Amino acid sequence: MKKNIFILMLCNVLWLSCNSQTNINEKYNLMPWPNDIIENTSKFIINSGITISINGEDEGRVYKAAVNFLRRLSNRSGVFIDKGFPITNEKGNIIISFETVSSLSINDDESYALNINNNTITIKAKTDVGALRGLETLLQLTANDDAKYYFPGVTINDSPRFVWRGLMIDVSRHFQPIDVLKRNLRAMASVKMNVFHWHLTDDQGFRVESKVYPKLHQLASDGLYYTQIQIKEIVNYASDLGIRVVPEFDVPGHASAFLTAYPELSSKEDYNYTIERYSGVFDPTLNPTKEITYKFLDNLFTEMASLFPDAYFHIGGDENEGKHWDENKDIQAFMTANNLKTNHELQTYFNIRLEKILKKLNKNLMGWDEIMTPNMPKSAVIHAWRGENEGLIKGGSLISAAKAGYKTVLSNGFYIDRMQSLEYHYSVEPIGNIKLTEKEHANILGGEATMWSELVTPLTIDSRIWPRTAAIAERFWSKKEVNNLENMKLRLNDVSYKLEELGITHIRNRDVILRSITNNQDISTLIDLSKICEPLKIYERNKNGVEYKTFSPFSLFADACVADAEDAVIFNKEVKAYLENSNNESLEVVKKSLKKWSNIHNSFQEIKINSKIKDLESFSENISIASEILLMGLETKKKISLNNQTNLTLAINVLKEPCMDVELAIIESLEKLSQFLLQV
Amino acid sequence: MKKNIFILMLCNVLWLSCNSQTNINEKYNLMPWPNDIIENTSKFIINSGITISINGEDEGRVYKAAVNFLRRLSNRSGVFIDKGFPITNEKGNIIISFETVSSLSINDDESYALNINNNTITIKAKTDVGALRGLETLLQLTANDDAKYYFPGVTINDSPRFVWRGLMIDVSRHFQPIDVLKRNLRAMASVKMNVFHWHLTDDQGFRVESKVYPKLHQLASDGLYYTQIQIKEIVNYASDLGIRVVPEFDVPGHASAFLTAYPELSSKEDYNYTIERYSGVFDPTLNPTKEITYKFLDNLFTEMASLFPDAYFHIGGDENEGKHWDENKDIQAFMTANNLKTNHELQTYFNIRLEKILKKLNKNLMGWDEIMTPNMPKSAVIHAWRGENEGLIKGGSLISAAKAGYKTVLSNGFYIDRMQSLEYHYSVEPIGNIKLTEKEHANILGGEATMWSELVTPLTIDSRIWPRTAAIAERFWSKKEVNNLENMKLRLNDVSYKLEELGITHIRNRDVILRSITNNQDISTLIDLSKICEPLKIYERNKNGVEYKTFSPFSLFADACVADAEDAVIFNKEVKAYLENSNNESLEVVKKSLKKWSNIHNSFQEIKINSKIKDLESFSENISIASEILLMGLETKKKISLNNQTNLTLAINVLKEPCMDVELAIIESLEKLSQFLLQV
Repeated sequence: MKKNIFILMLCNVLWLSCNSQTNINEKYNLMPWPNDIIENTSKFIINSGITISINGEDEGRVYKAAVNFLRRLSNRSGVFIDKGFPITNEKGNIIISFETVSSLSINDDESYALNINNNTITIKAKTDVGALRGLETLLQLTANDDAKYYFPGVTINDSPRFVWRGLMIDVSRHFQPIDVLKRNLRAMASVKMNVFHWHLTDDQGFRVESKVYPKLHQLASDGLYYTQIQIKEIVNYASDLGIRVVPEFDVPGHASAFLTAYPELSSKEDYNYTIERYSGVFDPTLNPTKEITYKFLDNLFTEMASLFPDAYFHIGGDENEGKHWDENKDIQAFMTANNLKTNHELQTYFNIRLEKILKKLNKNLMGWDEIMTPNMPKSAVIHAWRGENEGLIKGGSLISAAKAGYKTVLSNGFYIDRMQSLEYHYSVEPIGNIKLTEKEHANILGGEATMWSELVTPLTIDSRIWPRTAAIAERFWSKKEVNNLENMKLRLNDVSYKLEELGITHIRNRDVILRSITNNQDISTLIDLSKICEPLKIYERNKNGVEYKTFSPFSLFADACVADAEDAVIFNKEVKAYLENSNNESLEVVKKSLKKWSNIHNSFQEIKINSKIKDLESFSENISIASEILLMGLETKKKISLNNQTNLTLAINVLKEPCMDVELAIIESLEKLSQFLLQV
Repeated sequence: MKKNIFILMLCNVLWLSCNSQTNINEKYNLMPWPNDIIENTSKFIINSGITISINGEDEGRVYKAAVNFLRRLSNRSGVFIDKGFPITNEKGNIIISFETVSSLSINDDESYALNINNNTITIKAKTDVGALRGLETLLQLTANDDAKYYFPGVTINDSPRFVWRGLMIDVSRHFQPIDVLKRNLRAMASVKMNVFHWHLTDDQGFRVESKVYPKLHQLASDGLYYTQIQIKEIVNYASDLGIRVVPEFDVPGHASAFLTAYPELSSKEDYNYTIERYSGVFDPTLNPTKEITYKFLDNLFTEMASLFPDAYFHIGGDENEGKHWDENKDIQAFMTANNLKTNHELQTYFNIRLEKILKKLNKNLMGWDEIMTPNMPKSAVIHAWRGENEGLIKGGSLISAAKAGYKTVLSNGFYIDRMQSLEYHYSVEPIGNIKLTEKEHANILGGEATMWSELVTPLTIDSRIWPRTAAIAERFWSKKEVNNLENMKLRLNDVSYKLEELGITHIRNRDVILRSITNNQDISTLIDLSKICEPLKIYERNKNGVEYKTFSPFSLFADACVADAEDAVIFNKEVKAYLENSNNESLEVVKKSLKKWSNIHNSFQEIKINSKIKDLESFSENISIASEILLMGLETKKKISLNNQTNLTLAINVLKEPCMDVELAIIESLEKLSQFLLQV
């Protein structure tokens, strides 16, 4: 009997725990989702009496984070908090404790324990950075009813899956001012990312002041570079947020900017080196056979290493096709003399020499996965970027690197500039079911989302980074098992608009662009259009007639559109549900959407046309035609007339083609509905 | 006969010129309106072949302005311009010529002549800064038809009425980061303003790094200050835009921050000096009888003067009530010994000593108008801020100062933080019909809009500065006769949204706040409400129960609202037109608006309430009640029933009271309609 009761109780506990786990996922808009969360029945009311005290030898990181926490909480809740700064003479009702100050290395402990009850909140961490992570979790828990804001009672124990959770920003193709970086660093910290990889040089510009080689910023940046003081400002700002900064100086390829300033380092003489204005892979390459190249890089890296305290230093190393090496007789002779059979071997020779320079500077060399060649020292970190699109297997170089004994970081699958969907990025599991030894496993440091900036300016970059990067951040922090797409989307909705309080412009700048495009006419129709259009993906945007330069306009309709077009995502889901399950509720949503779009051209015609929206005219017309015919078909449930079949086909054919650098994100659903109705 | 023809021709020319002048005002969205504009029939088409060349010994100002011009033109027109930078080897189709590089003094020539024809545009100026002013005018002329963008053929000769056209930003009450200042400097330049008055110290913070007295920024800024390098960065950025920077170090009052760092300079011993968190006028005051005070200010001003190349240095000097002076026996003894009868005389003694320090540093002392006392040297510049609200006549101190032989700058009437209307500020004519000698006239340098920051943060400051400051800029630049309010409003509509391309957030951040307030629900109802509500004016916001601190929330409903509430301005105008002239078109607009508002409470109730919007509930309810009753009355043209009269009166009485720090900007119109209908 006792035994039975025990089993019954156990079942109950298990069921409750399982059930509550499901509920919990939907109750709290936490992202990344924590390791362990247990609810209690408390509520900590947010009122003017809220106070914070700090237990630990803080060097400023926790104090600043606490002040920011209070500002954000006050603005979010509307509560006039009495004590705007942490208190020192007594205990706060939020007590933050930690043991040591982090030096921001990959070995740092970022774990924390958060406990909320009616009167007290505690955050306990091994390090100050762990305390910061806990504060962000607490802020994400802010909840409200109709009368007050509060923190719900929970106990959370949390720590990251991977130690390297990065965002790379390319500031060469399009320079990004300090304030763009700062707001993105704030946003990174809010989703517990801890590495800012700063892609500082490329064909389109060298973006750091060099006192040793001043022609670099003077001749190769169009005046758009960071002073050394600004570099330090960003490094300190990131450090305050518990974020490491890894600089990248991309060599030997992607070197047009280097060679614009110092052509004597080049692999081809009598070549007109200039700052590149287009996007792509270009020929200018450092000459790896000249000693002056190493002298130069030694001096430069020595200067730059002093600006970046982090232990890692990224030398790029990607996409060097070696065309100028092939054409240079001296280089060929050097290769023969040194028994270097391929350009790849020559580049390895180059990399190994850089590795020595960096070792002297106490830096670990990191490079894109092309650097992983047989002779490369195992101290190098392999940045795995190539995958299926580059003829390899998905995420393949990560696993090869880990097995070969290299530390490695994954970016394949996280190229957010390619404008692929949230679903795509969220589903990229770095390790998957591959069996690894413990040591191999430890070699996988984590991953980085990469924001290449060929097609973004300060106006649009946030909408290309966010909110998708928050989901990627969860992939890097949370357990592998946290992978329910629909649940993640619900939480992301909340996390996304809250990024606005950190200054992120991903939502607000859409309307700015649309006002500009229409010369400040009513933008509601273009908003509706933008919610079903997505910018062309995977660099297609550069292929359709127009070739973008760095100074081309980036305030066009495509720049107002984003991946995961809001209305399209809903429509596509409901069309699927209707066609697969004859779901009636879905049918109603589908019909409502089609009704709205069948009117879109009418309202479009009320806009006074200009050359920036002219081409959208036929697009909107065909959207309305297709929507109207499909709506009629769904409503009458009768076969579409022959005439309308023709019109529908014509319209869909037009809509399959990109228009003004966007694609219609509902096109597949329209086609499916069309096929379905033809079979009625 | 010949004579008659001549007269006829003359009449024709006069009529045409007069008529075309009227037309011109409505054809071009220029602001400030230029001195002289003549149309021709040309059109300069904006296409990829547009090029700029610069004629003159440019030191970078024109080059940078030209690059920015090309970027803005490209983004605005959508045109992919081939040459993204000024060309040097040949003539551009836009040719900019100037004679000398400005050193940014108040004697600089800012005039320019702009000529546009089919193939060529010329901008000719005496100085590089004049050329910048011409480029902004050219950009404002951008026009389009349905197929292309172009510049219309015009010849413009232009120069400013006043040499001092400023904007003051208070960074003490709320610190404003570098990027806020930069975007506002860009916006200032776009409407030809040329002085940035930087209010750097006040009770709430000392905002500059001092190496001589480091406790100033270390103890009295909460870590929110500009490094000296950042100060230089802003000064250079402003200089590139042809903007002078005048720093203000407010003494001897408004000194809480000074005295938090260096209490030994105070007028009251054993007083707990701390950074002030509230707004208002406070007691802490420097001690003008101690020599260490002058030693301190000498050292500090010497350090600060080196950061600010401008010839003017603002010492504040306002609102010193001298309470601590009265209480200090040593100070009283000093006054007796030196025959200083009043606190005002003591302050004059102080000011005169500062004037000597500044003269040594080659700086002209500038101060708020309290410094204008009989013994004040005539080299001082009087900043006229007091007026009717301070018991003086409107703009009175400006005229007194000019007559007394002081150079003077007007801010009375331009306190944009008071949230008064566009109409109010635009109607402030600095000189009016007052007769002045030529010399007195020349003493009036110009004016400054003042953005005190008690109630603004980086999120909202732009919406308090713009667009009203663009109209004030016109008041400072254009002839006195340019004063047609309705015409100005038309032009301002265009200028306002184009400020967005400079990064100004006055439009976009409204929705950010409303999303935050509603926790990301549908904000359309709150947008509608915000278009008829205005934040409480003239510091009323601090009086209603809640007292704002520097760290209070400023993302409330009132912060989403602006002066000149969009729908209210239209409604009030149409109500007036209907009631005065029985205008039927106006009646239709009035009815349409009432109809919309009669539904506002229905849609408001669909929002899930929280404590940040709870109080708006009864506000929206009463708006709907009043609108519905008035609409019924206007539609039936019958007397309102007794019951409805009571309901209407009750509703209007509620709506007369401020709600959540806003006032209903249509309340007077609702009352007038109510009275009108009671008389039917």
